[in-house]
Amino acid sequence: MSTQLLNQGSVVQRLARVRSVMSEHGVHALLVPSADPHLSEYLPAYWQGRQWLSGFQGSVGTLIVTPTFAGLWADSRYWEQAAKELAGSGIELVKLMPGQPGPLEWLAEQTPEGETVAVDGSVLALAPSRTLENRLKERGAQLRTDIDVLGLVWEGRPSLPVQPLYEHAAPQATVSRAEKLAQLRETLQQRQADAHFIATLDDIAWLFNLRGSDVSFNPVFLSFALIEHTQASLFVDLNKVGAELKRTLQREGVMLRDYSEIADALAALPASTRLLLDPARVTCGLIANVNKEVKLVEGINPTTLAKAQKKPEDAVHIRQAMEQDGAALCEFFAWLESAWGRERITELTIDERLTAARARRPGFVSLSFNTIAAFNANGAMPHYHATEQEHAVIEGNGLLLIDSGGQYLGGTTDITRMVPVGEVSAEQKQDCTRVLKGVIALSRARFPKGILSPLLDSIARAPLWADNVDYGHGTGHGVGYFLNVHEGPQVIAYQAAAAPHTAMLPGMITSIEPGTYRPGRWGVRIENLVLNQEAGASEFGTFLKFETLTLCPIDTRCLQVELLTCEELDWLNGYHAHVRERLAPLLAGDALAWLNTRTEPVVNARS
Amino acid sequence: MSTQLLNQGSVVQRLARVRSVMSEHGVHALLVPSADPHLSEYLPAYWQGRQWLSGFQGSVGTLIVTPTFAGLWADSRYWEQAAKELAGSGIELVKLMPGQPGPLEWLAEQTPEGETVAVDGSVLALAPSRTLENRLKERGAQLRTDIDVLGLVWEGRPSLPVQPLYEHAAPQATVSRAEKLAQLRETLQQRQADAHFIATLDDIAWLFNLRGSDVSFNPVFLSFALIEHTQASLFVDLNKVGAELKRTLQREGVMLRDYSEIADALAALPASTRLLLDPARVTCGLIANVNKEVKLVEGINPTTLAKAQKKPEDAVHIRQAMEQDGAALCEFFAWLESAWGRERITELTIDERLTAARARRPGFVSLSFNTIAAFNANGAMPHYHATEQEHAVIEGNGLLLIDSGGQYLGGTTDITRMVPVGEVSAEQKQDCTRVLKGVIALSRARFPKGILSPLLDSIARAPLWADNVDYGHGTGHGVGYFLNVHEGPQVIAYQAAAAPHTAMLPGMITSIEPGTYRPGRWGVRIENLVLNQEAGASEFGTFLKFETLTLCPIDTRCLQVELLTCEELDWLNGYHAHVRERLAPLLAGDALAWLNTRTEPVVNARS
Repeated sequence: MSTQLLNQGSVVQRLARVRSVMSEHGVHALLVPSADPHLSEYLPAYWQGRQWLSGFQGSVGTLIVTPTFAGLWADSRYWEQAAKELAGSGIELVKLMPGQPGPLEWLAEQTPEGETVAVDGSVLALAPSRTLENRLKERGAQLRTDIDVLGLVWEGRPSLPVQPLYEHAAPQATVSRAEKLAQLRETLQQRQADAHFIATLDDIAWLFNLRGSDVSFNPVFLSFALIEHTQASLFVDLNKVGAELKRTLQREGVMLRDYSEIADALAALPASTRLLLDPARVTCGLIANVNKEVKLVEGINPTTLAKAQKKPEDAVHIRQAMEQDGAALCEFFAWLESAWGRERITELTIDERLTAARARRPGFVSLSFNTIAAFNANGAMPHYHATEQEHAVIEGNGLLLIDSGGQYLGGTTDITRMVPVGEVSAEQKQDCTRVLKGVIALSRARFPKGILSPLLDSIARAPLWADNVDYGHGTGHGVGYFLNVHEGPQVIAYQAAAAPHTAMLPGMITSIEPGTYRPGRWGVRIENLVLNQEAGASEFGTFLKFETLTLCPIDTRCLQVELLTCEELDWLNGYHAHVRERLAPLLAGDALAWLNTRTEPVVNARS
Repeated sequence: MSTQLLNQGSVVQRLARVRSVMSEHGVHALLVPSADPHLSEYLPAYWQGRQWLSGFQGSVGTLIVTPTFAGLWADSRYWEQAAKELAGSGIELVKLMPGQPGPLEWLAEQTPEGETVAVDGSVLALAPSRTLENRLKERGAQLRTDIDVLGLVWEGRPSLPVQPLYEHAAPQATVSRAEKLAQLRETLQQRQADAHFIATLDDIAWLFNLRGSDVSFNPVFLSFALIEHTQASLFVDLNKVGAELKRTLQREGVMLRDYSEIADALAALPASTRLLLDPARVTCGLIANVNKEVKLVEGINPTTLAKAQKKPEDAVHIRQAMEQDGAALCEFFAWLESAWGRERITELTIDERLTAARARRPGFVSLSFNTIAAFNANGAMPHYHATEQEHAVIEGNGLLLIDSGGQYLGGTTDITRMVPVGEVSAEQKQDCTRVLKGVIALSRARFPKGILSPLLDSIARAPLWADNVDYGHGTGHGVGYFLNVHEGPQVIAYQAAAAPHTAMLPGMITSIEPGTYRPGRWGVRIENLVLNQEAGASEFGTFLKFETLTLCPIDTRCLQVELLTCEELDWLNGYHAHVRERLAPLLAGDALAWLNTRTEPVVNARS
C-alpha cells in the first residue's frame, strides 16, 4: 500500500474526529494555520498539525474545516504537490493568488451569523486575530482562540524538540549579551515601556548570544523572553541548558524559567505595566493572558532592527565564512566538472556532494536551507527540492540551477549559481545574461541611507523588464549572522509594503537574486549576498552602497557576453578578479585550476 | 510706506479681531488651511483667507491662531518668503519638515482638555477632519467645523470668480459627456452606489467636457456634481452658463443648479442612499449635510482614474499640441540666441517672450503654470518665480533653468530645459549630464502594466545616486488633457505612498523631471512628458513603455558628453532626430536654423 493511500484513509478519519469535537464544542469552522507560538518559518513536528490533519506536507498552507467543507489554501509554489497529496481526502485545494481573498477573508465572508470560528490562539498572530475577530463581530459571529481542537484529537502528537542550547561565543559573537540587553533596555526607556515580550526565536537567539538545533536550518531553540528593566527572563526547557551554561546565564543576570511558564509570567505583569510587543510577531493566545489594564506599546521588536545591522567586527567573520563557503563551492564544481560523463549524477548527488564539501570547511555548522539542485524544468519551480522519490538525472543539455547555503559560526551564506550542462541554448544564455544584468545593476547601485528597501527593486528588474521579462518572487531578503537565512526587516521586493522599518541602514545583509522561470522548460536565478556599506555624505545626504560578500565564479559559459555593456563587463571581470584573489589561497589542485579557469576575464566582441 | 509695513499693521489688527471673535464663540484655536471647497491647487481670492489673515502670500501654508500663539506652517520652498512676510506680525514661522509633526498633529498634541478647535469645515477634507476630531476627542477636546470665524471678520472679502463656462468640444474632446456619464454610472453600479458626489474641479470639467477660467492656469470652473443613476446635477453659478450651453446641457440630461444649492442637495439624499465619495477629495463641512443614515462608499473618484487614461484619439491631439509647443520654444530659443549681448535680458523678459511665442500658436489657451525662468542661484529654488520686485538679469556665465508649459485645446504641456549662458563650468555640465542620465534611464524603461508608479522612481534616481546626488521633489506627476498640469492618481516619487490607485495604466501622461539643486549656486532640471504605451505581452505578463511626448532639443552645450554611455548617447541622438523631424515642418528662418543646429547628433569621444 502506498503511503499516499494510507495517508488518505487517515486524513478522512482524522477530519471526522475533528468535526465531531467541533460539534461538541459548538465550533462551526476550525482554522489551522501553518504556524507555531513563535511564528517561525520552520516548525517543529509538534506544531505541524496542518500537515497531520490535511495530509498536505508542504511547509506553507492554511486549512479550514467546517461541517460541510474542508479547504486548503496554498500559493502557486505548492499547487501541484497539494493537488496530489489532497486527492481523495475530501479537502479542496483553494489556490491562493495575489490580490485574491485568503483564508481569513474567506472566514470573514462565509461564517454564518451566530456561529463560532475556532483557532488555537497559540499559533495565530495578534494582528490578524484582531482583524478576523472584528470582521466576524460585524457579521454577528465570533472567534474563539482558547480551544485547541487539534490537541484534543491528535493521538501520537510528536513531542517538542529537546536539542541542547549552546553559546554563540567570541570571537564570532562580537557584542556581549550584557551589552545587547543594555541597549535593548535603553530602547524600552525611549519607548516608555516597562517590559518587552519576545516570541521570535531569532530575536531571542541573537539577544542572548545562544543557539540551538530545535528546527532544521535555523540555529534557534524554542523559547520566549520577557525583558524588564531589572530582570531578563528566558523561558526554555531547562533540560536543554547544561549546568555550566546555566551558571553563566545566572551570573549574567538572565533568569531561566521553564518554557511552559510564559503564560503565567505574562499574566503576572502588573496592571500598570507598559508592555512593548510586535502584534505581528506574538500570538493572540499568549497575549490573552495579559491583564487587560496593561498598556500595549506596539512596534517592531527592537532586536529585529538591531540584529539586522551587523557590526564591522561581524563583517570580518562573515567575509571569512564567505571565503570558506566559496572554497567549498569551488571544490564541488571542480568535482562536478571532472565527473560529467564518468558517473551518473542526479540532483540528489549534487546535494550530497555540495553538502559534503561545505561540511569539510572550518566553522561549518549545518546547511542554512534545503539545497535546491534543479535541472532544466525543475529549475522553473523556484522552491523545488529533489527527493528520493522524484529527482532528475543530470544529462543531455540545459541549465542546472543550484541554490544553497551554509551556517557557519561566523555567518550565514545563501548563493545561487547556474551550471551549463552540455549545450546551453541561445535563449537560455539570454535568460542568464539578463538575470546577471539585474544582479549587476543592483549590486552597483548607491542609494540614500534610510531609503525603504522595496523601492530599490525596480533597479534590479529594469534590465529584465526591458525585454518584457519578470519574476514572481522578491529580489532580496535579509540574512542573519549565523542565524535565520531569511530575516527582516528589509526586503527588496516591490510587492512588499514599503513600511518605515524596511529602511536600508548600514550593516544590513541582503540577497540580490533576480530570476527568470519558464515553466516546463528551465529556470534561471543568480544570487549574491551584499552588505550595506557607508558610501559617504554629500550636500544631498548620506549614501550607502553594497559590498558583494558572496565569493564564487558566475559561469560565463551560460552567458551571451555580447549582451553585456562595457560597464557590466567591467563589473563581472572585476568581481571575478576579486573572487580569484580571495579564494585562491584556500584552494589547491583541481579546485584551484577550476577557480582560475572560471575567473578568466571575458571580453566583449563589441569592445 | 512700504506695502510690507502696511501689511504688518493690518495683520496685527486682523489677528486681534479674529481672537476677539474666537473668544466670543468659545474657540481656543483657529485652523486656517490653504484650501477651498474643491481642495484645489489654485485658490480663488475668496478662499485666500490664510493670506489675508497672516500676510504670507505663498500658495501653500497653514495658519493656527490661539489666544497666546499664532503660527504659520510652511515647507522649505517658502521659508525665506514667509520669514520676510511674517516679520513684525507676531506670527511665528513653523518650519514644516518631512517626518516632523504638521499643524494638525500640533493641534492634536497642544490643545488643552475641554477646549475647542475651529476650522471652516467647507475647506477641510473629510479624511484629515476625522483624524483630527478623533485625536482631539482622545484629549477631551473638540473640533468645530460649523463656524467660519474668518468670514465673520473679513471685510471686503473678494467675491467669487464669474468667468463663463465653455464647452471642450470635438474634435479635441474625443468622448462625449453622455458616454462618460454612462461609464461612470456603470462604475457606480459595480460599487453598488446610488449616487456619487464630486467636488474636485478637474474631475467635473473632464466629466462634462466643460472648461472655465475661474482660477489661474487650470481651465476649471467652480462647481460641484452629484451623479445619480437617472440624474446628473451640476452645481454652478448659473450666470456663468450661456443660454445655448444651458440648452445643450439640459437636452443632454444635465440638470443645472446653483452653486449654493449643493448643501441642500446633499441633505436631501434619502437615508437609504449609498453615496460614493473620496474622503480625501471632499470637505467635512459639505458632508456634514448628509443624513447620518446614508451609507458612505469610500474610494477614489472613478473620474480620476478614467481621465488619467487618455484615449488613443486624445493622444493624436496631444502630439499636435506638443508640436505647437515645441515650435514655440524653438522660436523663443532662436530669439534668445540672437538677443544675447544685444539687449538686456532678465528672467521676466524670458517669461514675456516665451509666453508670447506660445500665444501665437493655434489652439493656445493660456499658460499651464507660472513660468519658472531662473538664472544660476535662483534655479536652486525648485518653485522660484521671478517678480517685478525681484528678478535676475541674465548675464555672465552659468545656467538658466526654464520650466514652462501651455494649455492648448488639444493638451497640456510642461517642459523644463537648461540654457547655457556664457561659460558653463565642468561641475554644472556634470550636474546636467547626470540629470539627463536620469531622464534617459526612466524614459527607456519598460515595466509591468499595473506597477505602482512610486516604485519606478529609483530607476530615474539611480544615475544621480551613483554620485551621491539626490533631489527633494518627486520625479514625475500626472498631467491632464487640457486640464490641470498636476493631476493624479499616478506619481513617480519614492516619498509617495504606493497606494493601489497609483498603478501605471495605458494612456497615462506623466512628467519625468529629475533635478539637482545647489543652494546659492545653481539648479538643474530637465523635464519631458511621457505617455504610457502598451509594450506587448509575454508569458510574464503585459508590459508598458513610455512614449516621449515633449518635443524640444536638450541643449548639449550644457552636457559633458563623455559621461554618457553609448546607449544614452543613442537615446539622445534618436530623440533629437525625432524632434527635428516633427518640428521642422512648423518652423522657418532662424527658428528652423536653431532647431537644426541644436538637434545635430553628438558623438562620444570614447566611441
